[in-house]
Amino acid sequence: MNPIHTQRLENLRARMAATATDLVVIGPSSHMLYLTGVSPHGDERPVLLMVSQSFAGFLMPALNVDSARQHTDLPFFPWADAEGPDAALKDILAATGTSPIAPSIVLDETMRADFALLVIDALPGAHRRFTHDTVGYLRSRKDESEYEALKKSAILNDAAMAAGFAALREGITEREIASVIRDFYKNNGATPEFTSVCFGPNGAFPHHHTGDTQLKSGDAVLIDTGGRIGGYPSDMTRVGYFGSVPDNFAEIHAILDRAVQAAIAAARPGAKASDVDKAARDIITAAGYGPNFLHRTGHGLGIDIHETPYITATSETVLEEGMVFSIEPGIYLQGQFGLRLEEIVIIRNGQAEVLSEMKRDAVATN
Amino acid sequence: MNPIHTQRLENLRARMAATATDLVVIGPSSHMLYLTGVSPHGDERPVLLMVSQSFAGFLMPALNVDSARQHTDLPFFPWADAEGPDAALKDILAATGTSPIAPSIVLDETMRADFALLVIDALPGAHRRFTHDTVGYLRSRKDESEYEALKKSAILNDAAMAAGFAALREGITEREIASVIRDFYKNNGATPEFTSVCFGPNGAFPHHHTGDTQLKSGDAVLIDTGGRIGGYPSDMTRVGYFGSVPDNFAEIHAILDRAVQAAIAAARPGAKASDVDKAARDIITAAGYGPNFLHRTGHGLGIDIHETPYITATSETVLEEGMVFSIEPGIYLQGQFGLRLEEIVIIRNGQAEVLSEMKRDAVATN
Repeated sequence: MNPIHTQRLENLRARMAATATDLVVIGPSSHMLYLTGVSPHGDERPVLLMVSQSFAGFLMPALNVDSARQHTDLPFFPWADAEGPDAALKDILAATGTSPIAPSIVLDETMRADFALLVIDALPGAHRRFTHDTVGYLRSRKDESEYEALKKSAILNDAAMAAGFAALREGITEREIASVIRDFYKNNGATPEFTSVCFGPNGAFPHHHTGDTQLKSGDAVLIDTGGRIGGYPSDMTRVGYFGSVPDNFAEIHAILDRAVQAAIAAARPGAKASDVDKAARDIITAAGYGPNFLHRTGHGLGIDIHETPYITATSETVLEEGMVFSIEPGIYLQGQFGLRLEEIVIIRNGQAEVLSEMKRDAVATN
Repeated sequence: MNPIHTQRLENLRARMAATATDLVVIGPSSHMLYLTGVSPHGDERPVLLMVSQSFAGFLMPALNVDSARQHTDLPFFPWADAEGPDAALKDILAATGTSPIAPSIVLDETMRADFALLVIDALPGAHRRFTHDTVGYLRSRKDESEYEALKKSAILNDAAMAAGFAALREGITEREIASVIRDFYKNNGATPEFTSVCFGPNGAFPHHHTGDTQLKSGDAVLIDTGGRIGGYPSDMTRVGYFGSVPDNFAEIHAILDRAVQAAIAAARPGAKASDVDKAARDIITAAGYGPNFLHRTGHGLGIDIHETPYITATSETVLEEGMVFSIEPGIYLQGQFGLRLEEIVIIRNGQAEVLSEMKRDAVATN
C-alpha cells in the first residue's frame, strides 16, 4: 500500500478513537479514493470499505476482485452475482470486530441508499452519523502536496477563464463559450469538471443550464468554471459584460467585491464558518440586497468540488490551518442579470490565502 | 407538464395501488427524469420527488427552484441553505398525506444515503423497499418510442464497434482504440457512455481499466462499448484477435456464441430471468468453463445502462413484453485472455429480438 494511504488510515483511526466511533463504512467515492487509492468500478453491485481499529478491508463483487487487487493489499470479502452480498457482508462485519450491541458507526453520506441500508439493516441497533467529523474532517485539512495541487489547478483555471471571456462576440452561444473553456482544459492536460456560462437574465438562476442563448450588446456575462489536474479541481466565478455596461452592474459588482474582501478578512483559524458567511452577507444586506443572495457563501474544495467545510449562516465548524473553501457571494436580479464573484481560499499562516491570481474586476468585452 | 409524464405518474399510482404503497420517494436520478422530465442540478443539497395517490411534488433547494420551474408544473417545497431541509421536508410529507403510522414507502435505491436517511428518520415506523416493483417495473417495460430509440442507438453502436476494430494495428494502445470509438459517437451526434478495450490477458478482468497496453500479434481483443443518442444508450461486446489466432480462442468463442443463442431462445414472456441465466450458464458449465463465467448473464437497459430486470441465477422476475436486457456470457482465463459476447434483446411479439445487426463472429484483423 502507498505510504500516504497507510498514514491516512492511521489518521482515521485516531479520529475514530477521538469520536468514539467503532466502524467507518465507505462506498465507492472520493472518500474511498482518499483513504485507500482504490477507485473501483461503480455500478449497482455493493462495494464497501470497512475500517475499525483492528481491521480495514473491502466487501467487493467477485468479478472485480482481481482488478482491484492490483491497487491495494487490503483484504477482500468477495460476493458473486448469484448469491448476493449478504453472506460476505456478515463475514466482513465479523472481521471488523464490531459489537452488534449499539455500535457507533459512520456512513459515507454519498453512497447509494441501497448500500447504506445493507449496513443499517445488518446493524439495527447502531448509532449512525455521516463522515463530517471523521473522514470529512481529515480531508478538510489539506497537506502541503494538496495545497500545491490546488494552487496549480487554480492557476490553470485563471487562464481557462480568460480564454472564455476572450472568445465572447456578438451572437455566440453560452454553449460555444463553454466549449472553448472545456477545450482549453483538455489542451492543457486537465479534465473539464463543470462550466456554467450565463448571458443576460440567465445569470439570475444560480444553477442555470448553459444553453443556446446568444450574446448581445448590453448583456451581463457570468462564467463559473472548474477543471481538474493532478487529481485536484478548481472552481472560480468571474463576471463581465459585452458592449455596453448594463444598468446597476457596476454597483452590484462593487458590493460583491466588498463582500468577498470582508469574508476573506473574517476567514482565520479559530473563526467559525458562519462568521465568514456573516461577513459577506452583512455587506450585501446593508446594501439592500440581502433577499437576492440566495445561497450559502461557500463550500469546501478538495478531491470533491463540494466537500467539508460548508460556509453557511448556521455552521459551527471552526476553521483550521489547511482548510480550503470557496467564498462566492452572489446577487440575483430576476429578469435582469445575476452576478457572483468566487474565490477559493486556503487557511494558511493564520489567514486566508486566495489561490487564483486573476483580478475580480468586471471583464469588459466588445 | 408533458403528457408522457402525466401518464407515467398515473401508471405509477396504479402500481402503488397494486403494491399497497403509500409513498414513493425519488432522488435526482433517471427515475426522476423518467417520471417528470426534471433533471435537477445535483449536489449535496437534498432534492426529492414525492408521489402519493393525492400528491406529487418536489423538495428542492431554494436556489434551484426558479430554474427547475421551467421544466415542470409540479409544486415545490423550497428550503434555504441557512435553514436546511427539515422544515420543508415536514411540510411536503404532510402534503403527501402519508400516515406516520407504519406507512409503506418506496425509496429510490440510487439516491445518496443522506437523502434516504432524511426520509427514513422522518418516518421511523415506515416499511420500506426499493423501486423494483414500482418505478423499476414500469421502466422495464419499454413502449414503442423507447424501442425505436434503443434500436437506433444499437445500430449506431454497431458502426462504432466496427470503427474500433478497424483501427487495430501493431503497437496501438487500448486507450487509443477507446478514443477512436468515442470520437465516432461524438461525430455522429451521440454521447460516449463507456468504452472498455482489453488486449490479451487484460480481457480476463471483466472490468479491466482501459490503459496503455499495446497491441501485438496473437492478442485477443475484447471491446465492450456504449453510447447514447435520443436519450437512450447502447451496450454491446464483441471479440476478435490481431495477427494470429490465440490458442483456445475459437473453442471459447464458439461456446459463448452457443450460450448467447441458448439464452435468446429461453428469453420469452412468462419465463423467469433465472431461466435465461441458466440457459447460458448450462452451456458454459457443460463445456467445463462454469467457474470461469464470473458474473450474471445480463442486466436491463433503458435510460440507465444497468436497470431492472437483472438476469441472474436467482432472479424470480418474470419476463414480459417490452423488457430490454443484455445477454452477455463471458469466460475469463487468467493470464491468457477473456472473451465475452453481449447482445441487447427486447421481448417483443413473444420472443427475444436482438437489437444489434452486427454478427457475433470473431473479428480477425492484422
